[in-house]
This record gives sequence, structure tokens and C-alpha cells, in this order.
Amino acid sequence: MVLIVQKYGGTSVGDMGRIRNVARRVARTRQEGNDVVVVLSAMSGETDRLIQLAYQVCENPDLREYDALIATGEQVSVALLAITLQSMGISAKSFLAPQVRIITDSAFSKARIQDVEVRRLQKELRAGTVPVVAGFQGVDKEGNTTTLGRGGSDTTGVALAAALKADVCEIYTDVEGVYTTDPNICPEARKLSRITYDEMLELASLGAKVLQIRSVEFAKKYNVPIHVRSSFSDKSGTFVTKEDDKMERVLVSGVTYNKSEARITVVRVPDRPGTASRIFTPISDAHIVVDMIIQNTSADGYTDLTFTVPKADFKKALKLVKKTADEIKAQEVLADENIAKVSIVGAGMVSHAGVASKMFTALAKEGINILMISTSEIKISCVVDAKYGELAARVLHQAFGLDRGELRKEL
Amino acid sequence: MVLIVQKYGGTSVGDMGRIRNVARRVARTRQEGNDVVVVLSAMSGETDRLIQLAYQVCENPDLREYDALIATGEQVSVALLAITLQSMGISAKSFLAPQVRIITDSAFSKARIQDVEVRRLQKELRAGTVPVVAGFQGVDKEGNTTTLGRGGSDTTGVALAAALKADVCEIYTDVEGVYTTDPNICPEARKLSRITYDEMLELASLGAKVLQIRSVEFAKKYNVPIHVRSSFSDKSGTFVTKEDDKMERVLVSGVTYNKSEARITVVRVPDRPGTASRIFTPISDAHIVVDMIIQNTSADGYTDLTFTVPKADFKKALKLVKKTADEIKAQEVLADENIAKVSIVGAGMVSHAGVASKMFTALAKEGINILMISTSEIKISCVVDAKYGELAARVLHQAFGLDRGELRKEL
Repeated sequence: MVLIVQKYGGTSVGDMGRIRNVARRVARTRQEGNDVVVVLSAMSGETDRLIQLAYQVCENPDLREYDALIATGEQVSVALLAITLQSMGISAKSFLAPQVRIITDSAFSKARIQDVEVRRLQKELRAGTVPVVAGFQGVDKEGNTTTLGRGGSDTTGVALAAALKADVCEIYTDVEGVYTTDPNICPEARKLSRITYDEMLELASLGAKVLQIRSVEFAKKYNVPIHVRSSFSDKSGTFVTKEDDKMERVLVSGVTYNKSEARITVVRVPDRPGTASRIFTPISDAHIVVDMIIQNTSADGYTDLTFTVPKADFKKALKLVKKTADEIKAQEVLADENIAKVSIVGAGMVSHAGVASKMFTALAKEGINILMISTSEIKISCVVDAKYGELAARVLHQAFGLDRGELRKEL
Repeated sequence: MVLIVQKYGGTSVGDMGRIRNVARRVARTRQEGNDVVVVLSAMSGETDRLIQLAYQVCENPDLREYDALIATGEQVSVALLAITLQSMGISAKSFLAPQVRIITDSAFSKARIQDVEVRRLQKELRAGTVPVVAGFQGVDKEGNTTTLGRGGSDTTGVALAAALKADVCEIYTDVEGVYTTDPNICPEARKLSRITYDEMLELASLGAKVLQIRSVEFAKKYNVPIHVRSSFSDKSGTFVTKEDDKMERVLVSGVTYNKSEARITVVRVPDRPGTASRIFTPISDAHIVVDMIIQNTSADGYTDLTFTVPKADFKKALKLVKKTADEIKAQEVLADENIAKVSIVGAGMVSHAGVASKMFTALAKEGINILMISTSEIKISCVVDAKYGELAARVLHQAFGLDRGELRKEL
């Protein structure tokens, strides 16, 4: 028997009609002879409503309480789906993280899953019951409620699929799969039928909002096939799997851009061993994820250090950096929230010359100034002025022929 | 050091301003040198919103899921108060039932508390932290979320006070205490400064909405003094305590009325041993609480059996009774949802003649027909047509001099 984990996002359970729609899909999957475990996000808008309530109280709500608050959104949606399935004659039970036992560390608001117990879920499956599990939430060793960060329900889905050794984890969302770029800013964007974990990791970390990056890391580590698809259509979506020989190594699979980061520059840092560590240790201790880091070669014993952090953590990071900058006697700290990061991603890039220069040339042609550059084996990112973000993505999508599919015959 | 359990109802935490108001009161109670444990209801309207969501799906939602759904209301309010207290510099932590461990049976939607563990709360108190506990919810032995029924947060408050051996359980609500009758229908109603557990039990079970009956049972059993008071005023409210010699035994303490019950009559029941048991066993198995039961003397081998149930359980009870009536070959089953129950309560009644006749005469003078009568040691209840409910309460309030305080000098 095939075991399928189906994760439905907030828009898929946005109102009662949509919850019934999800129930019908679950019913059909069961009728086709599969076992199903369902993972749900909160109804769309609900988590934001709860976050607003917290910020009405104060600017920096206690994070343990913040998590206890926002975890309730998923509890509502799982109970409602279980009620709906029961009313259709399908045995179903909702489960919260402490009931399954989805154990995380205690990094409130961005906790990481450490262990998933499967005994209870397996027992329910054997009894013919559909477990409906609250996504996004976990429980730490002290029994505190934790949450996994934005998009955390994806990670819940994949983690359950891995622990249960499910055949596939279906991620239902409001788009039909993973696209070569954001269709909202580039109408020529095309749906990818298949993509590797590594490519998806780069796309996810670069701001394609389809999947939470942690979920892809989990999927890669435990080799869980992901199928990203729409809950409003029966079309096949995008499979995210490990690379195999049948897949052609495409040059560029996709173009992403994101405006959710801010840039911090520490000017004239004395170039001594240990200064970078002194700057970044307090930030990492505060559980802030630094993305790009750039430090130029030092000429006169001083160097400028620039890095980006999520806008949500910007104020906190800036405060920490200013304190360190004083201590290490750097000249000043500059900050800029008006930036966009545009990136190209492709597994074929690693063995191909000329990709970077093609990218820089395409941007230059449109007069777009590049503020920062960062590269990995399968991606190149440029930070540009925020106002050029969408234009840059469109330009690159065309420059690499993604609108025509020329370079990507297999996909 | 004095330990106070403060329970705040839905209107007391109805919006952010009111939550801040509660936080200030908690802060002041601490500054006065007391230890405080807080118990909260959901923000007013929230539980009803969640119930509506469930009933949008189906008429008879699965009760395990129903409880999982409606328990979220309290989780929101406790997190918000904890955030508010923290922002004021007061150490505070929210706790859900499974975190404290408030153990109940598995009668979903009307579970009863079986055990309260106090170790975690005592640890927090020793550390100088204010525990903010979600009312209304519990956890059964299998780890399922349960709820305690309407007003269940009162019971949570008193149960915690009993388990922690608190000096007093303050119940904050939107009225200033327990009144001789409902001030909304009788402007002459007066606040009682003190009342016994037994009187409060009768008043609570008869529909005075101030306290959940289970909470008074708990308070009586463990001798927990309750102080019912308003969260919008600093005035002393009503103390509910055991009877002591200093209290004058008043004739009538209060008049209540309630319209939340419905009447079911089984007509021409064959008068054999065991029929009453056959009628009521299925109802009790369905966890439906039967209130008044009346059976007249049998004349011709047949008798009529009338009883009342909460309107919420009316349909379910009627279905069960019709089935039994068929089996035992009763003639028919009549039902009436348009009834009101009016009652007078007083500890002094037990040793006083003439109270009942005074009640019937007062009602008769206004042309109010009595449909059912039921009595206990300290109360007399009459069921009347729903439209006369408020009038009957006013008439009795005046007839027993509650508007003038004549018969109740001590209070």
C-alpha cells in the first residue's frame, strides 16, 4: 500500500468551501487505495491576525508566548478538517505536535525539528483513520510549544513523510508547481516538471515562496520525493527529487528575486584575526540567519564588511552590530532596507563558463547597478536597488532563454 | 505569603485594552505582596466564533474535534496576557492544560476534572513567575484535548485554588457580584455581600450565570473561599463561603430564572417497575443532564412522566426518548421549548413553613400559570410559559422583600 503525506497550505484551507474541497481530495486519495496522513497550515490570514494581536501589546513580544499564540491557527484548521472528514463518513483525528510528538529545539519562532515519533500515527493508520496533523508547530523537551518559522508546515509535512517512510510528500499550494521565475512579475514563466533537491534548495533560499528551505533539506537528507502541486487543479505539478542520470543537466533552471532582506555594512573594520567572529557570534546567538557576507581584500589594515539579514531581524541585528562595531572601533555602520536580491540557479552551471558574465552584461544593458555579488556552485546572486528587482528578474529570465525553453529540453 | 488565584472571564479580556487592565490588576496584587496564579477565559465572542465554524461543517460535529477546536480560544488569551505582563517587566508564562496537567475524564465538551498537578506551577511561583493558565480546557489520559463546558474556566480557577491550597479564588466578571436576582430584568436587585456554597449551588444550577455549578461544588468540597467581583471596579463583590454561625439564616437569598431548558413529556407510560430507568439510562449514557423530573401518582396503570433538559441537548434527548417510548409502548411524546424556570433560593427555607404557598400566590395574582413544580431543601422552582419568565422573577423578588432587604438583615 502506498503512503502519501499531503500538506495543504493556508490558501487551500482558507474557508469552509476550500476545507471541504481538501476533504474530498483526501477521500479520493483513500478510495484509490492509498494511506493518507494530512498536514495543514492555518487558514490564510489567521497567522497574520494572531501576529498582529501580539504586536498590539508590544514591539518585542516574548517569543515563548508568541509561539504559544500563533500555533493556535493550525489547531483550528486541523480540527475543522477532521470534523469535515468525519461528517463524510471518513474516520479522522486531529493531532497537535505534543500529541504526535514532534520534538524540536527551544529556538522559539524558528525551532528546528529534532525527532518525530511515528507510533501513534502508525496505530491510527492501521485502524483505518486519517491523521490530520497541525503543521508549523512543535514541542520542546520541556513541553513548551514552539513554531518552525514561516512556511514551517512544509517542513512538518516532509519530516512526517521521512519518519513514516512515505512514498511521496505532496505539497498543495495555490500555484501549479515551481516556475522558472515568479509568474506575477514575468508572464513568460514556465512550470518545471522536475527539479533536483539542490536546485530547489537554492530557489527556496533565494526567495521562491513555494517551499520552506528546511523542508527541502529534510527531503534531500532522507530522500523524500516532493510533489508541489495546486489544490485547485488535478494537473501534475513539479517533482522535487534527487538528481538521476536521465535528467539533463540544465544550465539555468530558474530566476528568483526577493525583497525580504536588508543590508548592513560595517565601515573600516580593523583587519585583525577574529573580528568577523566577534561581529557574527552575537548575531548567530540571537538565532538570526545571515545570508550573503562580503568582505573585500584589505589594503590599509582596514576593510569593509557587508552582509544581509531578513528584514524581520533587521532592527535586532543592527543593534547588536552597532554594539560590536563600537567595541572593535570600526568607523561606522551603514544600513539599507531598500534592496532586492536577484539570482539564477542551475545544476549545469558548475561545469559551464560564461554564465556570470552573461548575467552581469544583461543587467548592465538595462542600466541596473549591482551592489553585491555572491556565488555558489549552482547559483549566482546579485543585490540591486529594490526598485529594479522585478525588472532584473525579467531581464535574466529572457537572457537565459527560460521563456523559450531552449536551454532546458529535458524539462 | 498569601496565594490568590484570579480567574478573569471573557468580557474582562475582551480586547487589548482590557487585557492591559487585567495585567495592571495582576501587577498590583503582586506589589501588595501576594503570589498570583491567573486563569483566563477566551476573549469574549471568540468561543462562539469557533463554535460557529464547527457548525458550518455539520450539525453534529465530532466532539473530540469540537473540543480541540474551541480550546484554542483560551490559548490565545493566556499568551496575550503573558506577553503583556512580560512587557511590563513582570515574569509570566502561559500554560495549557497538558502543560500544567489538568487531567479530566474523556467526556468531550463536558469533561470533569479528575486531577490537577501542582508541581510545575509551584516551581514557577517559587521562581517569582506568574503562571497564566488556560481555563476551560483539560487533557484526558490518552492526551486528547477536552473542554469543561460553558463557564468551565470558573471550575479551572477553583480546581487550581483547591490543588494549590490558595487562600482565595477571585472570579472576575462583568458584574459586581451575586445579586438577589438578575439586575437586567429587575432594577431593584441588590448585591449580596456573602452567600453560602449551598445557596450558590442552587443559584448557579438555576441559571444565575455568574458561576459554573461545578466550580461551586469544587469550592464546597475543598472549602475554597470564592470572591466574585468585577474586573472594572475595585469594590468588594460577593464572598461565597461555608456557612458559619455569624451568618443569619435568611429566608430567601435570591430569585433566578432561566430559559435554557426544554420540557419533554412521555404520555401514558405503563406504570411498571423499571420504566423510569429505561427512559433515563440512554439519556444519561449520552451525558445529557436531566434537571427536573416529575411523575404523578398513577391511577389506571398509566402515568405521565415529564422532565427538562438543556436546550442544547434537546434534539438528541428527544430522539432517544422517542425510541424508548416506542419500546415501552407509551402513548406519545410531547415537547416544549418555550418554557422558563423561576426559582427562589434560601438557606432559611428548610425551617420555615409557608414559603411555597407565598410563592404560588404571588404568581397566581399576576395570572401566571404554573406548569411544573419542583422543590429541594433550600429552593422551590416553578416552570412557567417562557413569556412570563421575567415578570415572574420580578414578582417573586418583590414578594419576598428582596428589594427592601427586610428579611435579610445580616446580608
